[in-house]
Amino acid sequence: MTPSLSEFARRVPPFHVMALLERAQALSAQGHDVIHLEVGEPDFTTPEPVLAAIQDAVTHGCTGYTPAAGLPALREAIADDYRKRFGAQVSPAQVVVTPGASGALQLALAALLNPGDGVLLTDPGYPCNRQFVRLVGGEPQPVVLQAGNHFNVDSEAFMAQWQANTRVAMVASPDNPTGNMVPAEVLQQLAQGAQEKGGILLVDEIYQGLCYTQPASSVLAGSAPVLVINSFSKYFCMTGWRLGWLVAPEPLVPAIERLAQNLFLAPSTPAQYGALAALQEPTLTILEQRHQLLARRRQCLLNGLAHLKLPVVSRADGAFYVYVDVSDYTDDSFAFCANLLEKAKVAMTPGLDFGQGHDHRHFVRLAYTCSEARLTEALRRLEQYLESL
Amino acid sequence: MTPSLSEFARRVPPFHVMALLERAQALSAQGHDVIHLEVGEPDFTTPEPVLAAIQDAVTHGCTGYTPAAGLPALREAIADDYRKRFGAQVSPAQVVVTPGASGALQLALAALLNPGDGVLLTDPGYPCNRQFVRLVGGEPQPVVLQAGNHFNVDSEAFMAQWQANTRVAMVASPDNPTGNMVPAEVLQQLAQGAQEKGGILLVDEIYQGLCYTQPASSVLAGSAPVLVINSFSKYFCMTGWRLGWLVAPEPLVPAIERLAQNLFLAPSTPAQYGALAALQEPTLTILEQRHQLLARRRQCLLNGLAHLKLPVVSRADGAFYVYVDVSDYTDDSFAFCANLLEKAKVAMTPGLDFGQGHDHRHFVRLAYTCSEARLTEALRRLEQYLESL
Ligand SMILES: Cc1ncc(COP(=O)(O)O)c(C=O)c1O
Ligand SMILES: Cc1ncc(COP(=O)(O)O)c(C=O)c1O
Repeated sequence: MTPSLSEFARRVPPFHVMALLERAQALSAQGHDVIHLEVGEPDFTTPEPVLAAIQDAVTHGCTGYTPAAGLPALREAIADDYRKRFGAQVSPAQVVVTPGASGALQLALAALLNPGDGVLLTDPGYPCNRQFVRLVGGEPQPVVLQAGNHFNVDSEAFMAQWQANTRVAMVASPDNPTGNMVPAEVLQQLAQGAQEKGGILLVDEIYQGLCYTQPASSVLAGSAPVLVINSFSKYFCMTGWRLGWLVAPEPLVPAIERLAQNLFLAPSTPAQYGALAALQEPTLTILEQRHQLLARRRQCLLNGLAHLKLPVVSRADGAFYVYVDVSDYTDDSFAFCANLLEKAKVAMTPGLDFGQGHDHRHFVRLAYTCSEARLTEALRRLEQYLESL
Repeated sequence: MTPSLSEFARRVPPFHVMALLERAQALSAQGHDVIHLEVGEPDFTTPEPVLAAIQDAVTHGCTGYTPAAGLPALREAIADDYRKRFGAQVSPAQVVVTPGASGALQLALAALLNPGDGVLLTDPGYPCNRQFVRLVGGEPQPVVLQAGNHFNVDSEAFMAQWQANTRVAMVASPDNPTGNMVPAEVLQQLAQGAQEKGGILLVDEIYQGLCYTQPASSVLAGSAPVLVINSFSKYFCMTGWRLGWLVAPEPLVPAIERLAQNLFLAPSTPAQYGALAALQEPTLTILEQRHQLLARRRQCLLNGLAHLKLPVVSRADGAFYVYVDVSDYTDDSFAFCANLLEKAKVAMTPGLDFGQGHDHRHFVRLAYTCSEARLTEALRRLEQYLESL
């Protein structure tokens, strides 16, 4: 009766953490106090000046479509921001505003990949990347990062995986789930390496600004040609508004813009007016305060994990994640998460969601997207749970 | 230096009307008063109760991600609305909320098509459909509609085009650019025909509610299994908010939901809270008033075109478009539009944008998305222009 699904659709895995989340919701509904350390978005709501700008725009009638690549003023503001905050020269003509980094990832990969083309991507890494590649018939080519090397990206080892059909190398900095930042010189080596092979490096900078051991930076401050993905979701606390952007070498932009026209028509108009305010001083000041809060939470979590002797093998310099080695307690981090939820009412994300190539059974991701008080309580419960094992 | 584009990206055509629009903007910048009859969105802004609901939600902190398939309350409200306004039984579990009808079209086709699979689509028709098919390696299979038959969809002729690799038949009702509605019995025949072939009918109902010669309807009131696309863009005047939905046979939904998770993460949260208000009485009352205004504009335009002896060969029962035969004046409707813009400062969309299979050189699309006064002035200018030829 019902027509069959495409092979792609049949093979797209769910986010495994969703099963845990459903259980967490059921526990909450029963009156349990569940602490959520699995949430991949800031617990801060969209800053007031952004909301005010949106309200102002919509009451002035700005509720129709914008150009497919975004409001010219926003493309300019984004280019300006690269100069001001990151010392990078970007032309507004290189900027395409998109429905989230999700939209940017889709556009970039659809613009570059023919069926059968390969994309190097890190394992562990952001799980959706594989699906953006597969959507257009491309081949995800996982580069397995080693826990023994702190899940760092080594440019030589990475580029050694380049195959005849590879067209794109992808990394995220700061990274999800490890929180690692890829050093500027490694990014330049990857970019040059990819260029020499006739391909390109794609850097996902969605967690830009959320770093704790060094100043915020962009690969665009370097000279090698790259494709950059970004978003107003994380640093700007606008996840629900679905707005991101990409920065591409200018010759690629007209085609990317035509793709955007056809696939999305345009990004959200109110969100774009909000984004204009997001890049201005009053909002940036609020965001820096939040950034400081995150830094304190991070330290609280790292201290607590050290006390529990749970190793954070990645450097966790950025984003709001730590990737924790639980191999002293389990060979099945999914079961570990499920039990922890039942017994201690603490939710975490099992390593499985970030790739099956790396040693995912030994890892869980903790997000510090809740208050220090909650983190402290979660650590207390975790300690009790570990003692009970 | 720059990596090469994918073949798909290279082949995606621009919207041809964009070239005219740029010229229109230049003319406006020079102080000319350009009348825009090419705009495919309502000139009405988002209704006040929708904006109020959004403002209320965001000030209460609803700015984070929602579930990938949308807020459960919105999926329920949409299902309810089918019952109340269209007499159709739809379960909330069949509804997936998406980033516009654009997102819904992409999801639906990615869920169904393997590379090489064919999709029957009307020519003339909505131009992006071809690209959603090509994105996943599918083959657009144009079904050329005949001006002599008022660009009507004939179920037998349509299904006669079904090929061995065809998986989906797509129609829009009301249609863009013809304004035609496909009669309920024809839709049921198409749905049954597609089902017998092991495929499915996809009906784009994005202009639902915008019809002038019969009550609004949905193919879902019938019994044959179909996939339906819809949006808050047009009837609800929310284009800039980027919110739509699809209704699928329930067995397809889990996979569509996983796809949505990976490709979009979630639809816009504020837009979803707005949509909840959009489906309620205060907004529906406003929208019905706007609908009445559109009905008057339509009549004004049809009268004016009749006076000019310019045939509207389609029935133009719905949407806000009329598709006009200008073959008495030109064999090149693109040049006709360009000249009309220069000489009379009236912008229209040439037939070329809606497919090259039909007699596009003889057709232009006029949208009645401006006031009656502007329409009357446009008709006056058009008359002068035609007399000058
Ligand atoms: C590394 C990474 N890239 C991209 C995204 C997509 O985010 P959005 O579409 O909200 O901008 C996410 C979201 O969690 C992410 O972690
Ligand atoms: C027939 C048709 N389908 C789908 C769309 C996409 O609209 P949206 O993504 O704004 O819902 C449009 C927009 O013009 C259209 O005319």
